[in-house]
Order: sequence, then C-alpha cells, then structure tokens
Amino acid sequence: MKRKIKMGMVGGGTGAFIGEVHRMAARLDGYIDLVCGAFSSNPKKSKASGKALFLPADRVYKSYYEMFQQEALLPEGERMDFVSIVTPNHLHFEPAKLALQSGFHVVCDKPVTFNLEEAKELKKIINKEQRLFALTHNYTGYPMVKEAKAMVVADRLGKLRRCIVEYPQGWLSTRLEATGQKQADWRTDPKKSGKAGAIGDIGTHAENLLAYITGLEITHVCADLNTFVKGRKLDDDGAILLKLEDGAKAILLASQIAAGEENNLRIRIYGEKGGLDWSQQNPNTLYYRTLNKSMQVLRTGVGQQAKTTQAAIRIPAGHPEGFLEAFANIYKNFALTISQHLEGKKLKAINTDFPTIDDGIRGMRFIDRVVASAQSDQKWIKF
Amino acid sequence: MKRKIKMGMVGGGTGAFIGEVHRMAARLDGYIDLVCGAFSSNPKKSKASGKALFLPADRVYKSYYEMFQQEALLPEGERMDFVSIVTPNHLHFEPAKLALQSGFHVVCDKPVTFNLEEAKELKKIINKEQRLFALTHNYTGYPMVKEAKAMVVADRLGKLRRCIVEYPQGWLSTRLEATGQKQADWRTDPKKSGKAGAIGDIGTHAENLLAYITGLEITHVCADLNTFVKGRKLDDDGAILLKLEDGAKAILLASQIAAGEENNLRIRIYGEKGGLDWSQQNPNTLYYRTLNKSMQVLRTGVGQQAKTTQAAIRIPAGHPEGFLEAFANIYKNFALTISQHLEGKKLKAINTDFPTIDDGIRGMRFIDRVVASAQSDQKWIKF
Amino acid sequence: MKRKIKMGMVGGGTGAFIGEVHRMAARLDGYIDLVCGAFSSNPKKSKASGKALFLPADRVYKSYYEMFQQEALLPEGERMDFVSIVTPNHLHFEPAKLALQSGFHVVCDKPVTFNLEEAKELKKIINKEQRLFALTHNYTGYPMVKEAKAMVVADRLGKLRRCIVEYPQGWLSTRLEATGQKQADWRTDPKKSGKAGAIGDIGTHAENLLAYITGLEITHVCADLNTFVKGRKLDDDGAILLKLEDGAKAILLASQIAAGEENNLRIRIYGEKGGLDWSQQNPNTLYYRTLNKSMQVLRTGVGQQAKTTQAAIRIPAGHPEGFLEAFANIYKNFALTISQHLEGKKLKAINTDFPTIDDGIRGMRFIDRVVASAQSDQKWIKF
Amino acid sequence: MKRKIKMGMVGGGTGAFIGEVHRMAARLDGYIDLVCGAFSSNPKKSKASGKALFLPADRVYKSYYEMFQQEALLPEGERMDFVSIVTPNHLHFEPAKLALQSGFHVVCDKPVTFNLEEAKELKKIINKEQRLFALTHNYTGYPMVKEAKAMVVADRLGKLRRCIVEYPQGWLSTRLEATGQKQADWRTDPKKSGKAGAIGDIGTHAENLLAYITGLEITHVCADLNTFVKGRKLDDDGAILLKLEDGAKAILLASQIAAGEENNLRIRIYGEKGGLDWSQQNPNTLYYRTLNKSMQVLRTGVGQQAKTTQAAIRIPAGHPEGFLEAFANIYKNFALTISQHLEGKKLKAINTDFPTIDDGIRGMRFIDRVVASAQSDQKWIKF
Repeated sequence: MKRKIKMGMVGGGTGAFIGEVHRMAARLDGYIDLVCGAFSSNPKKSKASGKALFLPADRVYKSYYEMFQQEALLPEGERMDFVSIVTPNHLHFEPAKLALQSGFHVVCDKPVTFNLEEAKELKKIINKEQRLFALTHNYTGYPMVKEAKAMVVADRLGKLRRCIVEYPQGWLSTRLEATGQKQADWRTDPKKSGKAGAIGDIGTHAENLLAYITGLEITHVCADLNTFVKGRKLDDDGAILLKLEDGAKAILLASQIAAGEENNLRIRIYGEKGGLDWSQQNPNTLYYRTLNKSMQVLRTGVGQQAKTTQAAIRIPAGHPEGFLEAFANIYKNFALTISQHLEGKKLKAINTDFPTIDDGIRGMRFIDRVVASAQSDQKWIKF
Repeated sequence: MKRKIKMGMVGGGTGAFIGEVHRMAARLDGYIDLVCGAFSSNPKKSKASGKALFLPADRVYKSYYEMFQQEALLPEGERMDFVSIVTPNHLHFEPAKLALQSGFHVVCDKPVTFNLEEAKELKKIINKEQRLFALTHNYTGYPMVKEAKAMVVADRLGKLRRCIVEYPQGWLSTRLEATGQKQADWRTDPKKSGKAGAIGDIGTHAENLLAYITGLEITHVCADLNTFVKGRKLDDDGAILLKLEDGAKAILLASQIAAGEENNLRIRIYGEKGGLDWSQQNPNTLYYRTLNKSMQVLRTGVGQQAKTTQAAIRIPAGHPEGFLEAFANIYKNFALTISQHLEGKKLKAINTDFPTIDDGIRGMRFIDRVVASAQSDQKWIKF
Repeated sequence: MKRKIKMGMVGGGTGAFIGEVHRMAARLDGYIDLVCGAFSSNPKKSKASGKALFLPADRVYKSYYEMFQQEALLPEGERMDFVSIVTPNHLHFEPAKLALQSGFHVVCDKPVTFNLEEAKELKKIINKEQRLFALTHNYTGYPMVKEAKAMVVADRLGKLRRCIVEYPQGWLSTRLEATGQKQADWRTDPKKSGKAGAIGDIGTHAENLLAYITGLEITHVCADLNTFVKGRKLDDDGAILLKLEDGAKAILLASQIAAGEENNLRIRIYGEKGGLDWSQQNPNTLYYRTLNKSMQVLRTGVGQQAKTTQAAIRIPAGHPEGFLEAFANIYKNFALTISQHLEGKKLKAINTDFPTIDDGIRGMRFIDRVVASAQSDQKWIKF
Repeated sequence: MKRKIKMGMVGGGTGAFIGEVHRMAARLDGYIDLVCGAFSSNPKKSKASGKALFLPADRVYKSYYEMFQQEALLPEGERMDFVSIVTPNHLHFEPAKLALQSGFHVVCDKPVTFNLEEAKELKKIINKEQRLFALTHNYTGYPMVKEAKAMVVADRLGKLRRCIVEYPQGWLSTRLEATGQKQADWRTDPKKSGKAGAIGDIGTHAENLLAYITGLEITHVCADLNTFVKGRKLDDDGAILLKLEDGAKAILLASQIAAGEENNLRIRIYGEKGGLDWSQQNPNTLYYRTLNKSMQVLRTGVGQQAKTTQAAIRIPAGHPEGFLEAFANIYKNFALTISQHLEGKKLKAINTDFPTIDDGIRGMRFIDRVVASAQSDQKWIKF
C-alpha cells in the first residue's frame, strides 16, 4: 500500500452500536483513516458525533448528499475513498446508490437493502459505476470459518450431506421495542426492517455462513416463522428446512426469543467422510470429526492452515481473536483491494475474500423466499 | 421390598449389545435376579448363553413359548415375575402378548412394536390382563432429565416456545449393513425394523425425551426424511418441524450419517422466562439460562433438586453416573412397582416414573405420521 | 468362569455411602454374589442391613470374627470366596489380617491401613497366606485412565517432564464434622483417619493415579499442608511438589476446602513429545496434545485403543460410563482372577490390572513422607 | 478528550510480534495516533518500518536518543505525548529513563526492566519527573478479570484460602532458540532476558494476575525451577508454592515445555464462601462456584457487573472480545489519563486502572526471590 485509505461514514452517530463497531474494525490494522461523516439525519447530532471522533468540523456533514458532493470536489488522496453505510435497513439503498454514482466505493451493513428489488438494482449500479462493494457479513471474517471453507474445498469432509446452522439469541424474549430501546425498535418495525424480523436480522447471517462454508446454493425452502411475543409485528423465530445443491440438506434456525442465549451462531456440516462444528462464541476453535477416529480440535494458528486462514490471523495461537478482529478482516481486505485498484493492479484473490453484492442479493432472496414459504401450505418452495 | 423380583429374558443371547445392557441395568441395585431365559431362536445358542450367565440348565428354554408355559407352572416367588423382551422390533409383539396372557409383567425394548396397530393392540391386552408394562426409553432415566421435567412443571421456564431436540450419530455413514454387522443389519431392514430407519431407532428416543420433559403433545408434523447412503432401504437421516400444544414449536433431528458423532442426543427448550440445555454425552450437567442473568450449571446432586431427581441418584455429586445407571432407574422403579403390586399396595408415583405402553403408542404414531409427512407435498400433517 | 464368586462384607451397613458403592460395583457384571456380611459393630444394625439386602438370616453375622469362623466351616462354593472391607481406615488392618489368615481373599477400601507399619505387616501376611488382595483405588478403573497409561508405555508422550495432579473438593469448606455428619466426622478424626486428613482421604487417590499412569516412583517431596477450617484437627488442604524418577517433576494438590468444587480429580502429564489431560468429572474424554498439531479428543470406545482399555469398556462410544463402572472394573477383574486361582490357572495380566497391597504401602508412605515434609524447614525430603 | 494523544515507539520494527500488538491496541479505540518511532537499532530497518506504517520520513528516527531530542523540540499537540517501549527486557531501562527525563510519559512492555535494581531506580525517576507510566501486563485488561477482582473486593468469596495460577505454554518444548527463531532467542538468553526464563516471561504475568485479583501480597516463596531442554541456559518451567497475606496459599506454575499447550493462563481462587475460575483462552467466561449451590457462568456483558468491568467492554454479550481488546484497555485508559493530565484534571480512578511501576517492581522482586528460593535448600524464603 502506498498510502492509507480514507473512509467516510453514513450513520453511526454517538450511541449507535454498529457504527462504532465499523470504526473499530476500520482502525485496527492501521490501513484506514476515517476522514469524514454524515453521522445522523439530525445535523446537530452529526456534528457532535464528528467532534467526538476528532474530525475537523468541515468534514462533518449535515447529510450524505452534502458529503458525497463536497468530498467529490477534494483531490484524490485527500477525499474519502469509500463510504461505510451503517444505517438501518431501509436507509441503505439510497446512500449506497448515490455514493457509487458519485464515484465512491461502498461498505454496507447487512441485510444489504430493504427488499430484493433494491438489491438487484444496486448490483446493476455497482457494475455500471465499476466501484468496489463490500457487505459486512462479518462472521465469515473469522479465521476458523475460513479454515472450515478451505477444508470443504479440499474435500476433507467428502460430499456434503447434512448441515445445521442455528442462531439463537434471547434479547427479544420480551417486547423490548415497547420500552423505546433503539436497537429493538427498528428491527421489529416492518417500515425500517423490511418484511422479516429475526430472519432478516440474523437468519441472513446464518444463511451467509452456510453458503460461504459449503459453497452450495439453496434450491428449495420449507419455512415455519413465528411471532412468539404478543404485539410484535415481525417474526422473532424461524425454523427452516433447506434443500441444497447436490442432494445436501440443511436445518436453519434463527431465533431472538431463545431466552438466555447471547449470540450463539453455530454451524455443523457433515459429509461422507467427516464433520465440522464451529460456534461464534468460541470462535478460535473448530471441531473436526471423522469416521471411527478421534475428534480433532483445530485452533486458530495451530498447525498447517489454509492461506486464507493465515491471512485472517494477527497474533499467535492461544491469544484469542474475537468479533472485532473478524469484522476488521473485511475492512482490511477491502482497504487492500481499494489500494490495488487505485494502483491499477490486478486484485488479489486473498484480499477479495469479503462478502459482496452477490451475497446481498442471495440474502434478500433468502428473506423473500422464506417469508413466501412461511405463508404457503406447500411443503417445498423453489429458491 | 420383601423379596427380590425374578426376571426372565427373551433374546439377548451372547454377543447381543442390548441384552447385556438390560441385564447390567437389572443387576445394579440388587432388587432383581435373572432366573431364566430364552436367549435365542437357536436353542443351542440359548443354552450356551444361559450357561455363561450361570443359570441352571432347566431354566434356560428353547423358546419363549416353552419358557412362559414352564415358568407359569412354578410357584410364586420361584417363577419369574416379569420378562424382558430385547429382540429386534418385529419380534416384540408376539412374545409380549403371550407373556402378558401367561400372567407375567413385561419390560420391552423400544420401539415398542413393528407398527402402530400392534402397539394399540398391546395396550388392550395389558389392560385386559392387568399386568405392568415398562418400555425402555432409557434416556428419561437420567437424573438431570428428571430435573428438567420438574423445572418445566414448576414453571421455571414460563410458557414454552421453542424446542430443539437432536440425535446425531455417525455409525451408519457407510453401508455397514453390507458388511454383515448385526446391529446395522436389522436396523436397516424394513422387515425387521418397520417402516422407518433412523426415525424409528433414535428419532423415537428424541420424541420421547421431548414429550417427557415438556409434557406437550405434538399436534402437527412436517418431515423431511433422507436416505443418504446408496442402497440403503430405510431413512438414515430426518429433519422434522413440529407443532406442539399451546403454540410451542420444535425441531427434531435424527441422523445416523452425522460423520464422527457418537450418540449425541441433546435437547434445548426455551420458554418465556428461561431455557434448558441437556446433552446425553455430558449427562450430569443441565444448563439453565434465564433472561438477563448468568447461566446456571445444574449438576446431579448439587443443591435442592426435585424428589424424582433425587430418587434417580445413587452417589454424591461429582461421581459421574452414566448410561447404565439411567437404564437401571427404569428397572429399579419397575421392580419396586412390581413389589408394591405383589404386596397389594397402592403404587407409588415416584416409582411408576418409567415409560409405559402410552409412550410406546405415541412413539409408533410418531413413526407413522413422520413417514406419511415425508411422502406428502403438504406442509403440515396432523398428528 | 465356572461359577459365580461369593462375597462377604465387613462394614457398609445401611446408610453408609461406600458400602453400597462396593455392592453396586460387585453386582454390575454378574460375576459376584453377596452371600454374607458383618455390616456393623452393632449386631442389630448388621441384621437389619442384611435383611434389607435379602440375605438369609444365618449368613448375617454379629462380628467379622464370627463371620470368618462360620464361613470357613462351609463347603467351597457355598462359603464366601472373598471379603470386602469397607470400614473407616482404623478398622481395616485387623479384619483384613484375620480374613487372610482364615483363608479368604480380600478387597479393602483405601487408604489401606491406619499407618505405614500396618501396611507393611499386611503385605507379609498376604504373602504368607498366599491370598489375593485388591485395594479400591477406583479411579484407575476408568477406561481412559487405562488408555493414558497405555499411551505413556507406548511412548506417545516421550520422556515425561511436568505432571500436575489435582483433587479439589469443597464439601469440607465449613466445619461439617461439628454437625455430626458421619462422613465428615471420621475423616477429620485422627483416631479414625490417621495422621492425615485431605492428604489421606483424597491425596492418596491423586498419588495413585499419578503412579498408575506415569509408572514413575516419587523420589522427594516438598509439602505444604494447611488446616483452613478453625477447630479442625487434620489438614484439609495440601500443595505438594514432587520429584519423580528420571527427572520428571509434579505438583499435587488435594483440597477439601475448594468451595463449590464437587470431586474434581484431574491429571495432566507433559512429555517431550506430547501431553495428556484427564478429568474424573468428564471421564470418557482424554485430551491428547502434541507439538505443533491439533489436539485430539480421545473418547471411550472410539478408534484403536489399548487392550486394557477395551477390557474396561462395557457399552459403545457415546454411552457414558461413570464412577460405578470404573469401580466395578476392580471387582470384575478381582472375580476373574479369583476364578483363575480357583481353577489353578495362570493369572491373566489383563485381569490382575487392579491396585494391590503395593499401591497400599506406597500410599501410606506418601502420607507419612508428606506429613514429615510439612513439619520440616528443609525443602526436599526423601521419599 | 480534546484531542487525540500522540504516541511514539521504541522497537517493534517489521516482523516483531509485540510491536504490532501494541500498535493495534493503541489504534483500536481511536484515542491515539502513532506519530513517530525508532523501530530498530538498525536505522535502515527503522526507516522501512516507519514507511510501512505510513509515517512521514522525518518522524522516523535512527535511535531513541534522536527521537526524544527531536520530538521534544516540537510544539505540544504535535510532538509525541508518550512513548511505547517494546524492546527485549535488557533494553527497557535506558530508553524509559531517557524518555521520562525528556518529558514524555511511558508505556513499557513487561517485565519492566532487566533486574530489580533498575526497576526501583525507574520508580524514582518517574516520581521525580512526575510522568505517567504504564506496564503492559495486558491480561488484567480482560473484562472478566476486572469482574473477578471486583467480586473479591465485594466479598463474594469470603476470606481467601487457596489460589492456583498456572501458565502452561508448549512452544519451547524443543530447543527452538538453536534454530535462530527470534522470539525464542532473546527469551532464553540471560544477557537479554535477565536471570529468569519462563518465570520472567510468563511467570510474572501469572504473579501479576494473582496480585491484581486477590489484592494480597506474597510473603514467602518456595520455588522449584527446571530447565528441561538440554543446552538451554534459563529455566523453562517452574512450580512455586506461595504464602500470601492473611493466611492464603497459592500454587503458581509457569511452564514453556507443556507440550501442545498454546497460552493457557488460568487462575482459580477459593475463599470461605465461593470460588472463581478464569482462563485466558476462554476469556469472556468466569465461573463462580459457591457452597452447595449451582455454579454460575458469568459472561462479559451479561447481568449486573462492576463499573470497571463495564468500562472494559466494547460490544454486547456474545460478541467475543479477545487479547487485543484486553491489551487495548491499557492503552485506552492510559490515553484518557494523559488527557486528564494534559487538561489539569483530577485523574479518574476508573481510567488509572492499568499496571504501573509498582507492578513492575513487584514483578522483578518476584523473579529475584523465586530464583533465590530455587537455589536454596530452605523451604520458605521471605518475599
């Protein structure tokens, strides 16, 4: 890299959870500088947030319109190279579109848009504008998730048969949105979140993890969505059977009413020769089972590991890397890819290992088909 | 108890896995003596098995017909009080029926019969003959399963919402039956096993565990059964969505192709106020989660526990009790109940805590409805 | 085996914990029948205990003197073959001596005697009388402990370097003996327990486990013994550094004031090439680490295992075997060895895999040297 | 904070492990900017490292002498506020001293100096120059370590009795230093590392963790140090018994030849009422045991936690925070404290929660006394 990459931000004002996560992830490796932002639709709040982040006042904007316009006027190397969009779902498409059309690369929080149509439209714009785009399905940033994918590719499991991916959380076990809690509020509001609740918020993470590791497309879905908390407008729990390519089958559970659970994303995959088991709350460990032999406990940084895995590790074995490091792997790769793009180099595969608009479209289709299935009496619905 | 209870056995000749399990379970507490047996349809093998068990030659029979006939001629206290039937599924009904009609109580291995009709017929005979009947769904014999049930009854979880019960094994990942392996052979043969494979063999255990702890009836099923191993005649994997009474939902997985898994039966139950998590491979631990508080690790024998739990514990906390002890809890309770019956006493609820013909009928209906659902395009089939 | 082996018992009347443990262990495999007992120094209590165990009244004795005398008069095959001594420590030597001199084989609870001198004397008697003797250091009965020993023998760890064996319990965190609790009472009474408390009760188990797996003798000890609970007469906690043969070193912790711990015996052994880690509360798992490779999780019954391991397993992988099964492995081997002895056969090494008087003497020496070290200002004391 | 705090660095050139750890930790929260460095004693290497870090060429120095001199000439707000010293042990004192005397605050890697005398001298200089000083005993930066300390202070354990702190690693199981591996080389060289090997490198972390959580001073030590790998000059393993204030006792193990272990720092503390158990490789979990009740699993961010704990958490429960986040907590607090100092405010206790020169002196005394004890025949040596 010849220089640090400059980042702007839309949303993520003081108090927002995910905005600061994006910023910590962007800072960690020293490849990226936050140089500007439109942190809130409320200009005062945006200013205050920018100040708390030590940004010069003239780089803190009243709106993302203004930001894209003004930044575009600055010389390359001074203006932002890309923007991070960390607003709620219904406010992804418009700023992403405008950023791309203004010449900026984009990082966007998931799910990518409000609905499937927007996602498809966004892909067209990305292609037309020839900009880089990353979607923060951050769980695929963990080293042992990359190792799992590499093991599947290397046929360590044989032909895949049975998959189980589950994402239980318990924080929406009560009607938290009725208390004014901000995170709960927009996630349970169909106007902001879209047509799915738990399935959109965390089910898409589960779907993305399954797709990333197995490399298999979903062909059919059979979904049972539930709203257990009275008065809630969207699903807070869903159990889904999936048919995958090549005859594999999967169960996907996403629940936000699993009382007492924190953020327990887990995936198990069994093939003809072996099985893998990974849990987000214990992310540096990957259990590998084979037929009639002792289980192996693969650990971040121990023994021979795939190049993609190695590239995702910062510190030696036994020094736990966590959620922020996984998140930062997306930013690091995106910065390195922008740098290669800036310098006109061929993009390196090891750095383009981040989720893209295609993950976004598949995620939106997942929401769309799951909701359709949940409303149908037919067992299987085509994906 | 005034005297030890006398047991006979049908099946379970030398080399059979489950026969010796039943015998160890029967021996453990010193309440039961094995006094006779018809251990094999091959009279020579039966004789040899009886000798290896130190039985007198005249109490080892050529057939169960002969055994029931001859034992019935012996005086009470000398003749067997009950018979254990440990043959493959298709050989449960006839000996059970004849034993009951000959005046003997019966312990029967699961699933109770070859099909639902036989199970219903068996219940009629039990009722007519006024005999005691226990079905060895042994996993409900574990102390912490009893504690889980007691906690649900005591409303420690609130109204139940989401259940997940899973039973992955890996031993049938290859076509083991083609090698002549005896355990695999009859379990994958529709003539011996019935219309289901994994669902009958282990899915019924999962169903029984779910029913025992939650106390909820299944109302609808949506099943996806698979035969992953080529040439196999029955399912070796199944994923099932369930509707339970009172709006609760469940996922049930039974798989015998989960490569590398041993015998990993696990159940999780989440209610409005809390959740439970129990795994058979770590049976003395029960995880209890509640809203916004630290998880508690309940352990066999630690702290205040339910009376049914206490009755199922033999040794102090930290001294692991395992599969055989859980199995033995059925035998212990059955022996105590027979003793109360012999003495004309009222049966004690704490001792009748063993699975009965009703569990057997429900299990056979489960197989029946799951197979029907798997063959249907309709999403939900009534249970 | 041509016939079942007949067992008598000294101590273990109703209400005693360890007596029933011995009986369950003796029953499990069907090789042993309890035929007589002197269950208490109180003749009425002895009678009541015998009745509860369904023994004929004439085989329940007022004293062990009477029992040995009367049983010796019965014909072989009817009289007891061996006696189990399950009284407190100070009441081991006399009945053991008399039993041996009366021609009976002996199983004795640990620690073997009240002091080292008695233990040495007992060995002389055993040798003189040519009887069989087993000491119930039951933790070496676990399959994965046997696997650990076999791995050390097979040089899977290389030359041993660092060992850590620890046995924390918490049940004596308060002065339980002052409440009249029977188990606490004699264990904390120097007249019944001997010169050590925790070190004698559980430290000897830790020592025995270390010796069994490593095969190394202790050469020097450096002990720090503590009595944390005020008013208690014996140690309730001890931390000990050990020098072993061949330059290996060990830490041994035995504590009964580790608040909240159940029975958490654990051993770790590191050699030049690898390390092992086993915990009694999770006994079917043995962790095996090697240099620069993934850790392997060895499990009871999974993959190739040593013959001694296989001989200690009753049921397939994934069906947890516990404390009673490990205990029963001593009884099973002892019964098989008696049978071989009765039939004049050469004793099989796989069955004489139970602790003997040599373990007992080494255990008593351990107590003796540890107490001496604790009272010394010198760092290292010879063993 | 009115502005970001400026950091310089001594050591930590490209390829060094710990230098980049310090930089990532400094970056994470956005409070600190790296502005200059003398990254290597080799000026070319220093330049290259600075360039790779996107520093302007005129802020990358040939030596720390030059750096302190030149930076001191820059105006406040532009010059570095503090320097991080990340060189091997023998190169801590001189740059630290000079930095302090040049007016800069200092962060120093551990152990603080080459020997105890230097550490005491350094304290005098710190006091004289009235500068801030932080020592990166990073393991005390974990939220659940802070929670453990807070629980001890809040008397949740009662009077402390038995402590066990252990730090097994396996990476020095072979003579890695003979291969030229840089990390192994200086750590096993008495000229660079000082008079202790494993005890200095990781034993001091264990000692610091014990002191931080318990708040108890060591009064006596009894140490057994070993050099298991032939040809090695310093200890690679040590087992130490400790007497603490108020009658508590501890075992401390530090080993770098525990084959297959990664970085398995763990501490257990038992008091009259309860016990705590924390492991660095599973850092977001703290096990809390009490008498006769179920164990509680305390987790980062779940339930009511101490203010110091909350201040050390960045993201919600279930999003694992790791080694870098714990490390960053020292940098965050140090930056906030410098800011308060700059603004002339009273330093906030919640921010001065980082290790200081007193931890450094105690650590050097620990090394000194342990080595003395290891060479002595006397059991206990005064601390």
